[in-house]
Amino acid sequence: LEKVERFPGFVWRATLKMGNEDPRKVIHALKVGVSLTLVTLLYIMEPSFEGIGDNAIWAVMTVVVVLEFTAGATLCKGLNRGLGTLIAGSLAFFIEYIANESDRIFRAVFIGTSVFLIGAISTYMRFFPYIKRNYDYGVVIFLLTFNLITVSSYRVDNVLQMAHERFYTIAIGCGICLLMTLLIFPHWSGEELHNSIVSKLEGLAKSIEACVNEYFNDADEIKETNDKSSEDPIYEGFKAVLDSKSNDETMALHASWEPRHSRHCYRYPCKQYIKLGAVLRQFGYTVVALHGCLRTEIQTPRSVRALLKDPCIRLAGEVSKALKELASSIRIRRHCSLNILSDHLHGALHDLNTAITSQPSLGSNNSQAPMEKPSQPGQQHQQTKQNFFSGVLSLSKREQLQTSKDQLAAADERKMLRKQMSKITITSLEFSEVLPLAAFASLLVETVAKLDNVITQVEELGVFAGFDEFGDDHGHV
Amino acid sequence: LEKVERFPGFVWRATLKMGNEDPRKVIHALKVGVSLTLVTLLYIMEPSFEGIGDNAIWAVMTVVVVLEFTAGATLCKGLNRGLGTLIAGSLAFFIEYIANESDRIFRAVFIGTSVFLIGAISTYMRFFPYIKRNYDYGVVIFLLTFNLITVSSYRVDNVLQMAHERFYTIAIGCGICLLMTLLIFPHWSGEELHNSIVSKLEGLAKSIEACVNEYFNDADEIKETNDKSSEDPIYEGFKAVLDSKSNDETMALHASWEPRHSRHCYRYPCKQYIKLGAVLRQFGYTVVALHGCLRTEIQTPRSVRALLKDPCIRLAGEVSKALKELASSIRIRRHCSLNILSDHLHGALHDLNTAITSQPSLGSNNSQAPMEKPSQPGQQHQQTKQNFFSGVLSLSKREQLQTSKDQLAAADERKMLRKQMSKITITSLEFSEVLPLAAFASLLVETVAKLDNVITQVEELGVFAGFDEFGDDHGHV
Repeated sequence: LEKVERFPGFVWRATLKMGNEDPRKVIHALKVGVSLTLVTLLYIMEPSFEGIGDNAIWAVMTVVVVLEFTAGATLCKGLNRGLGTLIAGSLAFFIEYIANESDRIFRAVFIGTSVFLIGAISTYMRFFPYIKRNYDYGVVIFLLTFNLITVSSYRVDNVLQMAHERFYTIAIGCGICLLMTLLIFPHWSGEELHNSIVSKLEGLAKSIEACVNEYFNDADEIKETNDKSSEDPIYEGFKAVLDSKSNDETMALHASWEPRHSRHCYRYPCKQYIKLGAVLRQFGYTVVALHGCLRTEIQTPRSVRALLKDPCIRLAGEVSKALKELASSIRIRRHCSLNILSDHLHGALHDLNTAITSQPSLGSNNSQAPMEKPSQPGQQHQQTKQNFFSGVLSLSKREQLQTSKDQLAAADERKMLRKQMSKITITSLEFSEVLPLAAFASLLVETVAKLDNVITQVEELGVFAGFDEFGDDHGHV
Repeated sequence: LEKVERFPGFVWRATLKMGNEDPRKVIHALKVGVSLTLVTLLYIMEPSFEGIGDNAIWAVMTVVVVLEFTAGATLCKGLNRGLGTLIAGSLAFFIEYIANESDRIFRAVFIGTSVFLIGAISTYMRFFPYIKRNYDYGVVIFLLTFNLITVSSYRVDNVLQMAHERFYTIAIGCGICLLMTLLIFPHWSGEELHNSIVSKLEGLAKSIEACVNEYFNDADEIKETNDKSSEDPIYEGFKAVLDSKSNDETMALHASWEPRHSRHCYRYPCKQYIKLGAVLRQFGYTVVALHGCLRTEIQTPRSVRALLKDPCIRLAGEVSKALKELASSIRIRRHCSLNILSDHLHGALHDLNTAITSQPSLGSNNSQAPMEKPSQPGQQHQQTKQNFFSGVLSLSKREQLQTSKDQLAAADERKMLRKQMSKITITSLEFSEVLPLAAFASLLVETVAKLDNVITQVEELGVFAGFDEFGDDHGHV
């Protein structure tokens, strides 16, 4: 009972919240209300529109069905509806013309056959991906209109008159929709896509920073107690990116119908936005893998992690900064300064490399290094690796007790979490603990490579969308 | 001109191809054709359905709009349409009742106001995610019907009679849709979701196997020449998994409307399917990361890779086999033998571990191992790591010339591929080459952990969907 009493309050709060978050939704709802009232008034004011008569319902139907949230979606639906109606009308009249020549029985058979054929063919057409993507609604309207005209024509004599009236009312409905969508508080799909890309870039930036910070976070207790709430920011950051494909494509499709409303009247670069979205998804998958390292079965002890802590955090910070810089350059539609970005990244990568090189080594091989370094660059790499891993190992040994304690704690945690498949889990425990740290570092370097692709795509987008040149007054964000 | 001449042939081939791939699409198209013809005949046979008159168009409209590919989708739409129409009708009559009491001017104002309010409120309601997901179509139909009745009622006197007729025709349309969708060659959303999960499992199985094979493939030339075609099978395998979220949810929603057509009349476990889909996506992200290792900037030389080749291939084979086993157990709706799965995986993991342990070591530390092994298990891990990495290193040194040659080739390839951001790319070259191999192995172990989740979810699905018990006659697939 109490739940029922609280329900209206809950609905009211949810309504207010949604309105506050995005006032455009309220505006859109009011726009639909106004449009419908206008159409209704049209019908009520009999004297001036005598000719329209009963067909006024078509204007109402058009407004209800066509008026969408963004201008692009409305134009797309309106055009689909218009085209579908027109083609269906022509075809129906053609069939009508043939059927009229014959007697009543043949006419019924002929109409039945054509309805069957047109219905089956156009339904089959809707399965083609290209038509499904672009003209699905148009085909439905075509089928609907064709059937309505064909069926009506069997009884109504003056079909041309009816079609005429109907066409007028649909035109009036479409006109009201266009007026409302283009001139009164218009919402652009292109704008929405633009903003969604910016917010995705920012989300990824936050995500990667939070992820690396959590990985190198020393305070275990905080992580374990706030497990769910502390993981949210990371997940929230990349969640929107992962499943964005269909959404992006719909927005880009609608945006391609919108008039060029930018200052320079550039053609809206839908394809570039879609490509950028795909590259961002690729970046997102790497972040998911990084995030997976936080919860992997084999955990590197924190003491070993600490060796790479600072350079990794710096690299992640640089990647995150680069993403934010890209986001803000897209937001203000200005080319960003590639050199600054890559210089900083270069520095951070160099740092990570230095950190790997400069670990205390196990002895014997270290002495060879200065000798061979200048002559053979390949040798240097070998040396680097060796130094890093032997450094890790010597430290690991010292921290051995700590390590096994950590392992036990981790095992307990795992046991609590998932009891079922203990066999596999225990087996994985036997693996080296340095492996995940290496994987983490490798994935982090991988994000830099993916960032490269993102930068390339943003550049391309900038060229196609005619972004401003990077100015000296811009500097860092 | 030639292009235009070839166009019909192209369309015809595409049509045949789609029909061959999925004959259900052809059947659905024919079903729509038959339903439309039935509705049209209804209208044409005047004598028996005199009462319906002009309102026959509503039956046509219902069939065109409601009849969908799967039974669940049709039921969902039909119910939405029915509910929307019913509620709208009741509300419209209520408002009509109030408006009738007053004079003409007040009536017009009253109708206008109510149209505005109902229009704005129901449009706003459509933004709520819960309503958007479940009742979007119903709200549109509600708005449409309400406006039609309200607008018509202003002029038509006998509104009740009109509503009556309209209701009958809509009921006839819905009846035909139900008959067609449930009794004649029905396609079930639940079945489709089931099959899509099975094919996703199989796709992932293929993907992971192909990915590991390509990573350890010795023949560089083949990889480079057939670059695009050889990567396709890997990408094809997990592509369907990644962007499947909205699709899965729609199918599950429709499936939840379908009657329980299974032998045991179990409730269709939509939630379990959605959860399984989510776990599969997680698995897919790991496979994407594995796939990323194939094209990463820093490549481990093949000679070093060869050290882990066999165990990695075996582990991937086992994971792939487990996925296939799960797929086939879902397909035949039978519990799978968990023990066999985990035993084999256990063996493969153990193999990989052994491979890491048994590499030739660099000397000094090896002598300590036998002494400390029995007393301290933690020590053994350290030893393992050390052996592995020092083994890799000693081999690396021997293969140094080979390595630097490989590096040069790789650098050339990279240069050809992407010239732009050479700065970052060159920096990453300085990193250790063992890092990616460690990352690869770590990710492979990670897939086993993810496989765990998949197995858990499949088990849960099996319980909820009432799969058969695992029988002795089943064995391996």
